[in-house]
Amino acid sequence: MKRNKKKYRSHCPINFAQETFGDKWSLLIIRDLMFKGKKYYGEFLNSDEKISTNILADRLEKLEADGLITKAIDKENNSKYLYALTEKGVDLMPMLLEMIAWSAKYDNKTGTPAEFIKKLKKDKGSLIHELLASLE
Amino acid sequence: MKRNKKKYRSHCPINFAQETFGDKWSLLIIRDLMFKGKKYYGEFLNSDEKISTNILADRLEKLEADGLITKAIDKENNSKYLYALTEKGVDLMPMLLEMIAWSAKYDNKTGTPAEFIKKLKKDKGSLIHELLASLE
Repeated sequence: MKRNKKKYRSHCPINFAQETFGDKWSLLIIRDLMFKGKKYYGEFLNSDEKISTNILADRLEKLEADGLITKAIDKENNSKYLYALTEKGVDLMPMLLEMIAWSAKYDNKTGTPAEFIKKLKKDKGSLIHELLASLE
Repeated sequence: MKRNKKKYRSHCPINFAQETFGDKWSLLIIRDLMFKGKKYYGEFLNSDEKISTNILADRLEKLEADGLITKAIDKENNSKYLYALTEKGVDLMPMLLEMIAWSAKYDNKTGTPAEFIKKLKKDKGSLIHELLASLE
């Protein structure tokens, strides 16, 4: 079955989201693109969670098929691909910020900087604004 | 390894969230409890996505071990268990609402009622208030 013709178990919005990125890895790639300024295959591979190269390749392909990321030859280095979020991918930001807030509350070893959480609680709007600017 | 002593791949908040509910089923159970008024094993089993009984049993156990839901003997029927969200589970509501908004935007067959989306866009605060009241 072609990835871009997949059938969903249901069109419940929670299910749609889970079938699009609800595995243990896809959102980590989105995170790397959205919050960490990563753009290259090797950079995703070097994240703390130690994704394997075959899972990474699979998830990048899936995210591209689902329209969340784009892949293009890097103009500054023809032998490399550059990954970027599409609008559909960027639109996951409010959800990811809520996810971060939840985890920061419930994980007593959370890696989220206190400063980030403070900003998020105080003024989510301008944090989003800042983050969007960093993606341009 | 005991479920309540698990080690996380990282304490990145996105990863923490994904390791807690980032499979294709857990959030559907949370959804059933949060938005659909479901409380019983048999009700979760009857959802559109057709979860299998062994996966359902496993995910309920995991969600309980992670402190997202409680399981108690139903006082009105001693042979049945009643499931409910904990505060930690209820606190996923803002994230789930953002997930719903995203899916409603990008799934052209979305099952989300237009009325719900309208409310969500117009006044998320009072929608949350309403939903919380329905859980009491």
